Amino acid sequence: MTETPPLLLTRDARGAVRLTLNRPDALNALSEALLDALQDTIGAIGADEAARLVIIEGAGRAFCAGHDLREMMALPDPAAQRALFAKCSRVMLSLQHLPVPVIARVHGIATAAGCQLVATCDLAIAAESARFAVSGVNLGLFCATPSVALARNVPRKAVLEMLFTGGMIGAREAERRFLINRAVPDGELDDAVEHLVTNILAKPRAALAIGKAQFYRQTEQGVEAAYATASEAMACNLAEPSARQGIGAFIGRNKPR
Amino acid sequence: MTETPPLLLTRDARGAVRLTLNRPDALNALSEALLDALQDTIGAIGADEAARLVIIEGAGRAFCAGHDLREMMALPDPAAQRALFAKCSRVMLSLQHLPVPVIARVHGIATAAGCQLVATCDLAIAAESARFAVSGVNLGLFCATPSVALARNVPRKAVLEMLFTGGMIGAREAERRFLINRAVPDGELDDAVEHLVTNILAKPRAALAIGKAQFYRQTEQGVEAAYATASEAMACNLAEPSARQGIGAFIGRNKPR
Amino acid sequence: MTETPPLLLTRDARGAVRLTLNRPDALNALSEALLDALQDTIGAIGADEAARLVIIEGAGRAFCAGHDLREMMALPDPAAQRALFAKCSRVMLSLQHLPVPVIARVHGIATAAGCQLVATCDLAIAAESARFAVSGVNLGLFCATPSVALARNVPRKAVLEMLFTGGMIGAREAERRFLINRAVPDGELDDAVEHLVTNILAKPRAALAIGKAQFYRQTEQGVEAAYATASEAMACNLAEPSARQGIGAFIGRNKPR
Repeated sequence: MTETPPLLLTRDARGAVRLTLNRPDALNALSEALLDALQDTIGAIGADEAARLVIIEGAGRAFCAGHDLREMMALPDPAAQRALFAKCSRVMLSLQHLPVPVIARVHGIATAAGCQLVATCDLAIAAESARFAVSGVNLGLFCATPSVALARNVPRKAVLEMLFTGGMIGAREAERRFLINRAVPDGELDDAVEHLVTNILAKPRAALAIGKAQFYRQTEQGVEAAYATASEAMACNLAEPSARQGIGAFIGRNKPR
Repeated sequence: MTETPPLLLTRDARGAVRLTLNRPDALNALSEALLDALQDTIGAIGADEAARLVIIEGAGRAFCAGHDLREMMALPDPAAQRALFAKCSRVMLSLQHLPVPVIARVHGIATAAGCQLVATCDLAIAAESARFAVSGVNLGLFCATPSVALARNVPRKAVLEMLFTGGMIGAREAERRFLINRAVPDGELDDAVEHLVTNILAKPRAALAIGKAQFYRQTEQGVEAAYATASEAMACNLAEPSARQGIGAFIGRNKPR
Repeated sequence: MTETPPLLLTRDARGAVRLTLNRPDALNALSEALLDALQDTIGAIGADEAARLVIIEGAGRAFCAGHDLREMMALPDPAAQRALFAKCSRVMLSLQHLPVPVIARVHGIATAAGCQLVATCDLAIAAESARFAVSGVNLGLFCATPSVALARNVPRKAVLEMLFTGGMIGAREAERRFLINRAVPDGELDDAVEHLVTNILAKPRAALAIGKAQFYRQTEQGVEAAYATASEAMACNLAEPSARQGIGAFIGRNKPR
């Protein structure tokens, strides 16, 4: 089993990168090997100009069941545990730092750090039958690191109920709570993801890269500083040939009356 | 009337503490005596290892109608008014600092500082017939301190409409705006609260205490600092025997294939 | 065409100020002349004690289609572009700094900086047929400055989908995402706005001014500092004769039992 790579990567001709969490027998639990593979792969994608967006999915019957608890319990001491949580947090932050959009394609369960991964992706589409929980508290381990990603996406009381009860919610409820963009019938999941992918691939890479970076930066600033960050991003984006060409073509199609 | 205690406390064998605002003739308005009683009681609960969670409810026909306006108008000067608002704010902050979850059980009206109290509790369940407002502006006194709690729970435009119009919203709408976790038929309110209580009591106190403290802390931090706070909380939680036992039992039930 | 003023202002006897974006042939695109007129007018409204609230609407078949792209493309250099975005950001911030509530009355399309304008207004009512997008990315120019206003109103994944896809959403969906307060049947738009206006005009100007200023200030503070800001605002508001009169009358109507 150690010979099976914990993460599969494919990239189609358009630049859509598909990352498949590939530990199906462990419900794609985030082992250290899988986290390392994610970190390395995210770094490579960030440096690859031909990569245009990332889709994250799970092999087998689940998206991701969180940390690998067996591995976690075998860690020798608190320092090693801290290193594990820091490693996982770095993966999450690296997804937000990627210059391309990241989409979660969710089926089955997304629990604990798996739910955090959904919250961390820029966008998420789920099958109607998918279920979500930050379930660590059921075992006595509060999902603290997942709460960082959830609290930045989901209204407060909805997050706290998930954190305190550890209970599962369905995909429709996850949509209502803004944890995901939308739930679709199971048979339409791939079509829905592809629809979003096609849409985003039609946008210039530079605009998305500039826009995504400023988005996460400005959300941590006061509104005046945020406007300074955003104004700079707009001017920077306007210097891109793709923007000048796109706007020019638009103006050409819309002659003044 | 001064002999009736403004706050009743009961604690069942499980550690569920019930705080009953007990000024029914005044719709449980938050008099200084009631605020003092709340502050003292919250302090005692925080120091009581046998306390596992808190339910806040109102005696009589309402949850809470906010400040005691007669008392407020009798204050001699602005310094005394500031002291009142500081006292009330301290009660609200103390609820968030408690190491145990706090649930609002809402019926009747929850207005002004009463609505703030609902927003401040970690979780809230309301009867369908309950109504909510930050109604101070109707009398010329903008609900500024309530807006602190509301703005951290409810999307901005929904809060501003409540603050500017002072209008009542029903429990279903309060649920849609994420001011409460859910509205239930009036006859099912106690069952719904008990269901939540039973669920939470099954979790280790230590995990909830560590998790709640880090949650409110990290929501005020940038995402990188938040992950450092949360990672530390996870390592701290893992040192608890309850976590090691819970995870160990889970691993035992889920032998590798 | 240069003789048509780009912005119309009317003020009724009650103090309701109506600002009409008046470049209908350009779908009310925010030319520099229109932005300058908005800035001057907002300044005048802020200094006018008789102004009680502001309604922003668009002439013709749309609310606002964002920046004037023809003008933007004619700017000589990045410094001039930065100046444009700074000018637009200043208009948006000035609306939040106004001491009176600002309501967007939305019909037709509200796109790019037009969608930002909706998000920036304190409140927004839209016709059911209205549509919203941050569509710059479709032309290669990411709506960075609009994202500042949107991110402070709309849950994160819903904002990112709008920013990355540039797609239109209807008014009902804009309501679900909390971008607007509500969508109403097209024929009822003016009645719905007037209902809100009448409600707010019944409140004392001082309470709204104190309340609005502290609201935006406290949302950028940690919760403890926010309570200090808000407590000060309450004491300041209580010093207003309108508040003392309003509360006094209420107490008079509600004699103790």
